[in-house]
This record gives sequence, C-alpha cells and structure tokens, in this order.
Amino acid sequence: MEGGRSDAPPHRVAIVGGGFGGLRAARALRNAPVEVTLIDRRNFHLFQPLLYQVATGALSPGDIAAPLRHILRRQRNTRVWLGEVTGVDATARRIRLHDEAVAYDTLILAAGAGYQYFGHDEWRPLAPALKTVEEALDIRARVFSAFEAAEREHDQAVRRAWLTFILVGGGPTGVELAGALGEIAHDTLRHDFRAIDPREARIVLVEGADRVLPGYPPELCDKAAASLTRLGVTVRTGATVVSIDQEGVTVRAAGTDERIATRVVLWAAGVRAAPLAAIVAAATEAEVDRAGRLVVGPDLSLPRHPEIFVIGDMAHARDDEGKPLPGVAPVAMQQGTYVAKVIRRRLQGEATDAFRYRDRGSMATIGRAAAVADLGWLRFAGLPAWLVWLFVHLMYIVGFENRVLVLIQWAWSYFTWNRGARLITR
Amino acid sequence: MEGGRSDAPPHRVAIVGGGFGGLRAARALRNAPVEVTLIDRRNFHLFQPLLYQVATGALSPGDIAAPLRHILRRQRNTRVWLGEVTGVDATARRIRLHDEAVAYDTLILAAGAGYQYFGHDEWRPLAPALKTVEEALDIRARVFSAFEAAEREHDQAVRRAWLTFILVGGGPTGVELAGALGEIAHDTLRHDFRAIDPREARIVLVEGADRVLPGYPPELCDKAAASLTRLGVTVRTGATVVSIDQEGVTVRAAGTDERIATRVVLWAAGVRAAPLAAIVAAATEAEVDRAGRLVVGPDLSLPRHPEIFVIGDMAHARDDEGKPLPGVAPVAMQQGTYVAKVIRRRLQGEATDAFRYRDRGSMATIGRAAAVADLGWLRFAGLPAWLVWLFVHLMYIVGFENRVLVLIQWAWSYFTWNRGARLITR
Repeated sequence: MEGGRSDAPPHRVAIVGGGFGGLRAARALRNAPVEVTLIDRRNFHLFQPLLYQVATGALSPGDIAAPLRHILRRQRNTRVWLGEVTGVDATARRIRLHDEAVAYDTLILAAGAGYQYFGHDEWRPLAPALKTVEEALDIRARVFSAFEAAEREHDQAVRRAWLTFILVGGGPTGVELAGALGEIAHDTLRHDFRAIDPREARIVLVEGADRVLPGYPPELCDKAAASLTRLGVTVRTGATVVSIDQEGVTVRAAGTDERIATRVVLWAAGVRAAPLAAIVAAATEAEVDRAGRLVVGPDLSLPRHPEIFVIGDMAHARDDEGKPLPGVAPVAMQQGTYVAKVIRRRLQGEATDAFRYRDRGSMATIGRAAAVADLGWLRFAGLPAWLVWLFVHLMYIVGFENRVLVLIQWAWSYFTWNRGARLITR
Repeated sequence: MEGGRSDAPPHRVAIVGGGFGGLRAARALRNAPVEVTLIDRRNFHLFQPLLYQVATGALSPGDIAAPLRHILRRQRNTRVWLGEVTGVDATARRIRLHDEAVAYDTLILAAGAGYQYFGHDEWRPLAPALKTVEEALDIRARVFSAFEAAEREHDQAVRRAWLTFILVGGGPTGVELAGALGEIAHDTLRHDFRAIDPREARIVLVEGADRVLPGYPPELCDKAAASLTRLGVTVRTGATVVSIDQEGVTVRAAGTDERIATRVVLWAAGVRAAPLAAIVAAATEAEVDRAGRLVVGPDLSLPRHPEIFVIGDMAHARDDEGKPLPGVAPVAMQQGTYVAKVIRRRLQGEATDAFRYRDRGSMATIGRAAAVADLGWLRFAGLPAWLVWLFVHLMYIVGFENRVLVLIQWAWSYFTWNRGARLITR
C-alpha cells in the first residue's frame, strides 16, 4: 500500500486482455496514481456481440472494432502492449511474453474464453466457432461459398448437402447465427442465383437441452423457437452431435442416430476459458472449474494472491445465492469497474465490499426485427425486444468513437435486405 | 450471326473477369439477345482505386466491394460463375475451369493485371504489392505491426529500421500509399504511443524515372513531389531498388548504392497482365507485349479470332497516334461498353467503327486534401484537384448500391484524422 507515499515508485497495474472487462478496468484507472500496462494479442477491441453480423456479411470487421491505442491515446498513465502472455511468475510478480517480461504490483487477468469441442478437437477445423475476426471471415467464406458450390453442382444429393447448414449449440450465438442464415437464404440471396433457389437451404439448429436459449424463461425460449421456425430454421432440441466429418454430421436424439449430409457446420457450444487460465492455475495453485475458469473470491482476486484479479469469461465468480455468474459482457464490464475501485481504495488503505453483479437483463436477437428480452421485471419478444436490443448494443458501440456509422450501415441493410459485405476472402 | 433468327439457340457470351471492363460489358449486354456468363475467381467487384485506403486502415474491404451476384441479380440473361479459367480451346470455343467447361460464341477476356518483380520473384514475399483484398490486409498488418514492434524495441538502430517504410514505384499507387503513410505517421498515430514518436517514421518513395507520376505533365509531377515532401515523404527519383532482403533494401542512384535498413517494403512498380493472357496467347498464336498483354486490333479482338475480345489491363490497344492506352479504369470501362456494342451490332449484321478512347483526364491523390488532376484542357493541383478526385471516385462507387456510406466514412476520417479500420489481422 505504498501509493500514499509520494516518493515511492508508482504502483504498476498489468491488465491482460483488452475485451469488455480489461478495457473497462483500464479506463476506470485513468485518474488513479498507477501505471497501467494493457497487454493484448490484438491491437483492437472487438465488439463480439456483433461478430455474427461479420460472419454473415452484414458488417465489416472494421465496423465492430476499434484500435486499443486509439481508445486509450489520451490516457497518459496507460500504455498498450501488443503481445501474448506465455507465463506468470506470481512470486516475482512478473508476466512473461514471448521475448520480454512485464513487472506488476497488481495483475488483472481478463483474457476471455474460447470454445471447447468436448474432447473432439478433431472437429475444430470441420466446425469453426465464432470468436475472432479471422474465424468470422472464415465462416463468411464457408457460408457464401456453399451457395456458390451448390449453383455449380449437377448432382442433386451433393447440391442438397451444400445447401444444408448445421449449427451446434442453441445459446444466443447459435440462435443469432441461425436467424441470420435464415435471412440470407430467404431474402438476401433470393434473386442472386440461376440454377438453385436459395430458399431451399436447410438450416438445422442442434441443442442438447430441451429448449433453445437455455437459461432464459421458458416462454421466451418458445418465442425464440417460433421466430426461428418462421425464418425456415429447423430446431432440434434434446439432440447432440455425435460425429462430424467432411461429408456430414450424425445427430443423436432420444437414442436414435440421424445422419445429415452437409458441408457447413458451425460450432456455438461449450465455452472454455483462455489457455492462460491453466498457466495461472499452475503458477498460483488456484482452483479451476470444469470450463477451465479460475475460481475467485468475493473481491474477484485469487485466494492466495490478493494482488491477482480475474474478471470476465476467465473467472468463475458467484452471486449472493452461490450461482456462477454468466459469461456475458455486462458481468465483465461491471467486474472491470469494480476491480479498478478495489485497487484505488487499497492504495488509500481502504477496504471494499464484495463484488455484486447488477443484472439488468439479457437479450438475444433472432434475425431481422425479432428478439427476446428478459429484464427480470419484464419479459418480452418480437419487434419491441429487437428495438431494445438494437438500442443497447448501439449505445455501447457508439461509445467507441465513430461507431455511429454502424447504425447507418445497419439501417441500410435493414431497408434493402442486402448484406453488402458478403465477400469471400481467405 | 444467327442471333437474328428466333429459332436459333441464343448467342453465348462468356466474360472472364468482373472488374471495371468485364462488369461494364456484362451490364451493357443486359438487353441484348444473348446469354451472358460472367466468370470470376472472386464473388465481388472491387473498386481498386481505393484499395490503398484499405491497406492504410481508413476503409474496410466491404466498403469498396460489392457482390457480383447482387449487382447483376435482376439481369435475367446473365449468370455469375465463380471459378478460375485454366485453359481456352479457341477452336472448340470452350474455356476450361478447374472441373468444368463453359462454351461460348463470343469471349471477352477482362482478367486484369498484377505486378511483376522484373525477374526477382524472390522479392514478392518481402515486398507485397497492392492488388487484392488479401494483399491490402497483409500490407495493413505489416504497416501497423511495424509501429507496434518499434514501440517494444530497445535497440535504437532496429527501432529505426522498423520505422522506415520503402515504397518502390512512383506511379499513382506508390504516391497514394506514400501520402497515406505520411498521414498515419504524422497525424493518425500522433498520440498513440509512449516509447516512440511516430513522426520519426521515415517514408522513402523510390522511382526510376526523373519525376514521380511519370506520364503526367511535369508541373503536376513537381506539385505532387512537393505535397509528398510536406507529408514527410523522402522522394528518391532516378533511383532503382537493386536488392531486397529481410533486413533492408539497396537503392542505386547515379551509380552509387545506398543500403537502407527497413522492415516494410511495399511494391508498386511493374505491371504485368494476368497469367491467363499467356494461356490465351499460346492457344490463339496471339502476340503479347513486354508486359504480357495481348495485342488486339482496332475493334479490340484478337487478329485471327474476331470472336475473342480483350479489354482492360490485359489488352495492348493503341490510340489513333499509335500510343498504347494506359492501364486505367476509364479505358477498361469504355472498352467494355464498346465490345458490348460490337456484339449487339454483329448479331444484327452491322459493322462497328474502331474503338476510340475518350480521355477525360487523369488524377492522383496525395494524402488528405491534396491531389493533382490533368484534364487535358486544364491542369490543377491541391484541394480543388482533391475535391474533383473525391467527387469522381464517389460518383462511381455510389453507383454500386449502398456505397454512399463510404462517403460518410471518409468524411468522418477526414474530420477526425482517424483511421478506425487499422486492425492487424492475419
């Protein structure tokens, strides 16, 4: 707690990850008597909730990303460091990057999460997940290339396989992707082909639970499923994918296996904390949960290391009732703000109450003008929910400089049914 | 000339390439009694004159591209075919793609051009050229990664190498790239770094001729050079690059070699027709010039094959004075319109006069609010030239659907000095 002495070297805060949690923490420390180093593998902050719009050709990566340096350029106590953390020495308080080390007094880990394939890592190249810009562009290329291949294909069975899209996982990402694919097939591409009718495309959403959007109130799940069906999506609940290969997938439901020929499988199931969590767990003897997340205490620090905080999708934190907090952006942002406050108060020798998540609700969108929203005190669906969803997301994204353009781009896509960014690039 | 008989099968026109020439030809055939197949390796039309804005982080690929299918979706006599032409059988009138063949009665070749390295193909990976979306994103990553590496580097000499950018070729592309790099170093990144001052970046434009923009009137060349100097660009005319490796380049001027340590070399010299030109030359005994372009007759067809037209950067056509036409978009577009007219008139048994290029002038831009314009009857530079440049380019791009957004994006970059699309992706 040397921050109070003016002759002491400044307190060094290292933040790993420039996502929702890490960036919020960095900004909340802008007037604190600390030196902040924000480390990220990428030079930009990505608005992940709209990544599915990049994957489906409605937006460009540049529309939903902002350079971290630009966001933090006026924050003189903060430097941005491009690099990947390869190790943590919790005793010496240093993190290792590939060819250098960064010393810290306080460490904030906010490296997020990726997808896991439940022991089937061989499925990864066959069924890409939607997490990075590169993955979004890969998915975009696969989706639109499939329609191109179908147009050229003479064999009816093969053509049908090209026009079959399987989505594994019926959470918000799977539902959003399925809805967007439904729109692409029924509206966007409607007049574009000569040999095929894109409306013949078959989109199958496979979810292991008995409803899509598990965790949402049942009546909203049912409304989401109804919206998907209207967009031509086949919803298969209580079903799991048991094999994936180049030619198709096998779906098991009620003990029966069904083989579906397909060329495009997208993965939206099974989140797992970033590999850094395992590195930290080994270095600090911290506990991890089944999703690889670091289990943190009430102040979001590691049990034996009060100077190491973990926030966002990397952290296993619990609410007052002992229920784990969901891996959503609002949790990460509130945690980022909280941790910055703890650091500021510690430097003044003050204690801070335990973190409490203020749940303002959750939302998922299903294609154009349809969504479900659960605000706790109010549950609704359809166009009103979509407008609220749009407003909330735009307010956040507009906060990053020039992102008002995304609104215009969206409005244009909306009124013209077009997805102008459907470039196939590799 | 069977098109006049209603019982004859429709006349089949194959167009290879959906760039300025090929797309213009396809659109000009929309009401002709023909069946058009437009073949391209890519599913989009790219507005190449603005590709340097993608490479320098001001625009996203989706901003300057439009799906070919979308542009041609209402043109019922036209189909779009995604594929790469691997061979031409001029006797059987068939073009071969990887796994199929397309028969034609008339063939329009419009596959464009790429860059050549004057016998030094080993320079290609070291000094990328700006032709495709992927190359633009590669250049973007190299440029912005260089500033990141300089920020992390402790060795002064290495840091200086990271902050040195060499552009080979002082034509419009080299000048535009150099101007944009000057802006990035002096304005965009000004406040973004802590260890380096981006304004220390050294940008060197190497041109073999004694002026930049060779082919332009000398007074405009001088004004362009002056604008570049103001942006901090070192202009080296009468100089050639004689070696490129991982550590730097060697520049030869007036018999003296100078070694410049650098990590980023960009290539904008030496255009060469697409490899398809050589395939066609072998199949038709057509003549090619030193840039690999197919030499065409006054009606833009090959001497022994009146049914094969070549337009745009693939063609070596001459004006009335016997001077080869330049490889610019207006030539390709006028040629596309002309060839469509020849085809329509032939089907009616009518002849057409030789192609004549109507030169409306040429322009090059040098950073923000500076350009040079040569309209033949009027030559001017500075802000007025830039506004004309902006207007002409926007008018074209707005023609493709929703491209009015590009105007807004640009205006925003202009007023904020920001380049929000400076994502480093691989």
